[in-house]
Amino acid sequence: MNICIYAFLAGITSLLGSGVYTAAYPLHDVSSIFVRLLYEEWANYGVFYKYQPIGLVRKYFGEKIGLYFAWLGLYTQMLIPASLVGVIVFLYGCATVDDNIPSMEICHLRNNITMCPLCDRVCSYWKLSTACGTARASHLFDNPATVFFSIFMALWAAMFMEHWKRRQMRLNYEWDLTGFEDEEVSNNKTDHPRAEYEFKVMQKSLKKRQKSQDKIEKLTFQDRLPAYMTNIVMMLLMIGVTFAIVFGVILYRISTKAALHMSSSPITRNHVQLTVKTTAAIINLVVILILDEVYGAVARWLTVLEAPKTDKSFEERLIFKTFILKFVNAFSPIIYIAFFRGRLVGRPGSYLYVFDSYRMEECAHGGCLMELCIQLSITMLGKQLIQNNLFEIGIPKLKKLIRYIRSKQGAFQEEERQKKLTRYETDHFLEPFGGLTPEYMEMIIQFGFVTLFVASFPLAPLFALLNNIIEIRLDAKKFVTELRRPVAARAKDIGIWYNILRGVAKVAVIINAFVISFTSDFIPRMVYQYMYSPDGSMHGFVNHTLSYFNVSHFQDGKEPMDPSHPVVICRYKDYREPPWSNTPYELSREFWAVLAVRLAFVIVFQNVVMLMNDIVDWLIPDIPKDISLQMHKEKILLVELFMKEEQGKSYIIHSSTSTDGKENCSKHNNSKVAPPRSRRHTNSTKSF
Amino acid sequence: MNICIYAFLAGITSLLGSGVYTAAYPLHDVSSIFVRLLYEEWANYGVFYKYQPIGLVRKYFGEKIGLYFAWLGLYTQMLIPASLVGVIVFLYGCATVDDNIPSMEICHLRNNITMCPLCDRVCSYWKLSTACGTARASHLFDNPATVFFSIFMALWAAMFMEHWKRRQMRLNYEWDLTGFEDEEVSNNKTDHPRAEYEFKVMQKSLKKRQKSQDKIEKLTFQDRLPAYMTNIVMMLLMIGVTFAIVFGVILYRISTKAALHMSSSPITRNHVQLTVKTTAAIINLVVILILDEVYGAVARWLTVLEAPKTDKSFEERLIFKTFILKFVNAFSPIIYIAFFRGRLVGRPGSYLYVFDSYRMEECAHGGCLMELCIQLSITMLGKQLIQNNLFEIGIPKLKKLIRYIRSKQGAFQEEERQKKLTRYETDHFLEPFGGLTPEYMEMIIQFGFVTLFVASFPLAPLFALLNNIIEIRLDAKKFVTELRRPVAARAKDIGIWYNILRGVAKVAVIINAFVISFTSDFIPRMVYQYMYSPDGSMHGFVNHTLSYFNVSHFQDGKEPMDPSHPVVICRYKDYREPPWSNTPYELSREFWAVLAVRLAFVIVFQNVVMLMNDIVDWLIPDIPKDISLQMHKEKILLVELFMKEEQGKSYIIHSSTSTDGKENCSKHNNSKVAPPRSRRHTNSTKSF
Repeated sequence: MNICIYAFLAGITSLLGSGVYTAAYPLHDVSSIFVRLLYEEWANYGVFYKYQPIGLVRKYFGEKIGLYFAWLGLYTQMLIPASLVGVIVFLYGCATVDDNIPSMEICHLRNNITMCPLCDRVCSYWKLSTACGTARASHLFDNPATVFFSIFMALWAAMFMEHWKRRQMRLNYEWDLTGFEDEEVSNNKTDHPRAEYEFKVMQKSLKKRQKSQDKIEKLTFQDRLPAYMTNIVMMLLMIGVTFAIVFGVILYRISTKAALHMSSSPITRNHVQLTVKTTAAIINLVVILILDEVYGAVARWLTVLEAPKTDKSFEERLIFKTFILKFVNAFSPIIYIAFFRGRLVGRPGSYLYVFDSYRMEECAHGGCLMELCIQLSITMLGKQLIQNNLFEIGIPKLKKLIRYIRSKQGAFQEEERQKKLTRYETDHFLEPFGGLTPEYMEMIIQFGFVTLFVASFPLAPLFALLNNIIEIRLDAKKFVTELRRPVAARAKDIGIWYNILRGVAKVAVIINAFVISFTSDFIPRMVYQYMYSPDGSMHGFVNHTLSYFNVSHFQDGKEPMDPSHPVVICRYKDYREPPWSNTPYELSREFWAVLAVRLAFVIVFQNVVMLMNDIVDWLIPDIPKDISLQMHKEKILLVELFMKEEQGKSYIIHSSTSTDGKENCSKHNNSKVAPPRSRRHTNSTKSF
Repeated sequence: MNICIYAFLAGITSLLGSGVYTAAYPLHDVSSIFVRLLYEEWANYGVFYKYQPIGLVRKYFGEKIGLYFAWLGLYTQMLIPASLVGVIVFLYGCATVDDNIPSMEICHLRNNITMCPLCDRVCSYWKLSTACGTARASHLFDNPATVFFSIFMALWAAMFMEHWKRRQMRLNYEWDLTGFEDEEVSNNKTDHPRAEYEFKVMQKSLKKRQKSQDKIEKLTFQDRLPAYMTNIVMMLLMIGVTFAIVFGVILYRISTKAALHMSSSPITRNHVQLTVKTTAAIINLVVILILDEVYGAVARWLTVLEAPKTDKSFEERLIFKTFILKFVNAFSPIIYIAFFRGRLVGRPGSYLYVFDSYRMEECAHGGCLMELCIQLSITMLGKQLIQNNLFEIGIPKLKKLIRYIRSKQGAFQEEERQKKLTRYETDHFLEPFGGLTPEYMEMIIQFGFVTLFVASFPLAPLFALLNNIIEIRLDAKKFVTELRRPVAARAKDIGIWYNILRGVAKVAVIINAFVISFTSDFIPRMVYQYMYSPDGSMHGFVNHTLSYFNVSHFQDGKEPMDPSHPVVICRYKDYREPPWSNTPYELSREFWAVLAVRLAFVIVFQNVVMLMNDIVDWLIPDIPKDISLQMHKEKILLVELFMKEEQGKSYIIHSSTSTDGKENCSKHNNSKVAPPRSRRHTNSTKSF
């Protein structure tokens, strides 16, 4: 494409900006073989098991969208082994649930330990054997195989990165993009300033012109300072809102539990746990879904306020902000459950209270891993089902309907109208293309679910895989039939998304280390087995994790009202000194020993996984062998050409002096044209 | 250079290999302005404060050696700020030595604590106040500023890497090497197989030819298996030897100490510590120096055995092996002192014995950091002084002398002979060039000293800086006057050394984290101050770190013979329960608490430093702005040239078909010639 097309596009953009035209879009080319092939081989649920025809996608939609689908395809493909291993790990948990000594000890009626009440006054003492069910269930997700699985998934993420680098390199080569990015990035002339930016500069220069005659060409840091400040404040505020909502849900959970405990109906009281957990998780989900939309809008507004100079910079800033807000939104309830819940409880006789009246919540006896798993699965599945099906399918259809009704008032008959309309009219009824950001964002958040807390939810890759198999075809259908055809754009890589993926994968290593060592019972079990167990087995573990409490030490008004039990000593889950020691209820030596081992595990896990990642990085070359050979051959051809040129040196000197004079105009003309390759032909202009 | 030169060189190499010629080397060009400039501006101690004339070095010696000196120059330059900060940290330690409460408490006679004897039977109880000197001295290296300094040095290492990447890019551009490496690596035709490799292949094919008629072209994994096995076994054996020697030195230290303690002379006994420490450190140093030479030879022998295919692969394998052996050799005594010494002691009444009679050694009261510092400074200074001055200056001179005496038997008079000799005869008396590996290796080991244990020895960068200022000029003198002129070689980067540097810098982060948290007393002091101190100050810290021992619990025959003290309770440095608790002498709650905090510190330190490194990596672009702009401009010129070419398409088609036929011969001809740049001229052929 040459300078004329650029000028034309720039003109269109400003005409659109000033409202002369309402929309400008390339037309869908329904009659061509391309679209028919895309319909059959791509935007079709029937071919879900096949590779996508990426070459076709790129030819019809351009490189940028082609790369997105190639990435999505590779990600989905890589999820297959991950889901397989995840399912095996889960099945291992199911198979060994009956051999698990700690849950057997809890379920066994002989060890019927009296536990301290779960809430003040209204709750009574309870028997540990009633927690049998949760203890057995938690073994499904809290067994040694999960440690293996989280190491596996960390390596999987590293492999995925490496494979994507290779795939991208191959596509770059096949699509003739090698050596393209450099020009795009450093040649500022092709990066047109955004209309909004130019408008702001103009405003500024108009204001200043009254004082001085200097022409102002760009916005300084000082001009941008108010926007930057607004950005920072708003971002902090939004994150604060997220935290406040998480805290609100915690309060809801605590207070509802207390209220339901006071209820006189025994059925209500029995279902307290289930009711509260489910409703809280659903509230969380709804809040996440709503805030996701709000945050998307806020991020866009903030980025517009910032007025970045180029489209590229606008997109990156928008993505960065949206990513931070959505990530915090999706993961803060989960991080609370994984790392804070059940840790700020206090101890019997000296509980921690919120607002002086509500005790902080504890985890069920199986550890918090179980609850983490429930929360994760509800959030992940809920987000996928609702956002995909409702938002991605339902709302566009609704919008199309509304637009249709509005413009035509439904006067014509459908059939007749379809025939009469020209292509550009039909396409006008379609949803405009809003960029790839929402698609990538959805996938990155999903990647977060798959890698960040995989230690507690080995089925996450499976759910992601099932979702993505549909997602690919859904997106394909959307692009082919629901959206106006996007303007084809070139891109060499997936840009900032790759860095975000790398960041998520890095954070995943450390989060999984902490989940295994702090949220699961893996380390306490190991410590008991090797340091405290009299016979080297797990027998006695449950007793070892429970501390003693003398009920006479309850604060006044906090002791249970139920007088039925003549209890002197009750037990609670913590490592504290017994009432009869010199320092009653202080953290015991076992507590510190377990803590030290937990931390040591984090160090070992993190460093081993990082080392293994480095090895994977080093073993898999970034450029596939055949591609690098091919590129080398072409380079030699290029050099040969130059040598030929060299022979007619006078000609070059002549031409280089003549181009120096008209450099400015010829630069545009040439910068987009790749050096001619010998045996292949570039199709990029056709896709436009 | 064209194919003729290559063929000529290959011929020379095989003639050298078969012993027809004894040596082949380019001649020193003493009469040229180059050499005179190099003498004056480079190989001269008087200009130590000036930048090196890298362009000249590259023109005379080739890119590979030029890059080495550029790297060495940047490293030395970067050491300046590091040494400055290191000196400030050291001075801070000196200035605050009198405000240090723990050492004040040790020195104060009022708290005159009776300590348990340091060896069995012959040693007596001792007063803590006698350790006053070491306690004060250890504060110099063990204060909060060292924590800051090790974070600083981790960032420094990251900055150094980034700066080197930029410098390398700039040199690549200025020396016209951009786009050179690709050809060198992937074009196997320029990578001639080594003569040794071809010889082995020939042997194999001769052996096989009797059975079958297939021509064997390369060695398979099976052919190499014996060599690989020998490699692995020998490497493990050598590492084992290093460990055995470290253990031997420990035994020497323990047994000498015991023997000297038994001596009747009080002067001898007073100087026990000093004598033993100094001799042991010197023995260690001597062993390191000898093994360094041995390991260099072993690594070369092993690599020859492996018969790598190309020179490049030979060099990389050799470097890798040498690096591992020398690194283990240089750092294993230091790692022992940092992480194991004083930790495997046992406790009074149940000490750990080696060979049933020698107690494991303890650290002096100030902690092991002091001893680590002594060992580090002796090893580093000794290595630098002896290896640089003795080996690098003395031995080449000696060799030159020997060669001179041997060849001429000293019959002629020196003066007369010098005049008569032609240049190639004079050069023949010079030492042959043995590659850059020893030079780089020396610097990498030094880089290890500067970064790995910097937490315990803040003056290391200063010593390295002083050494390197001399080293640059020493190496320069050696290259200009002592060595035969090396064959100029092209190189785009410093190759495997960059990866090794990165690896060392990564390991440095975790080692420093462990040194601060485990070797220094930083964490115990912090834990005491915030968890146990009654008034939040450091008063009472010394008492807190000492456990109680009831002397009646000594094993029979191990109690001190000296009857002068009526001692009931003695103290020892450890966190254990007192004799009157329920679990006497078991590790106490404090021990586990301190351990947990130490481990937590490692996690926090490592992750914070890694995050900061990532930020440095991200903030500093790899390619300097001006270079990338310049490269972009040239690319545009290149494209323009192509466009011109495009217009005369028929001409290209004609030429490409004609070159396809004679591809094999023309490839060599062209692959080494860079595309002609418009305004610069390539000088690389001149340097040959």
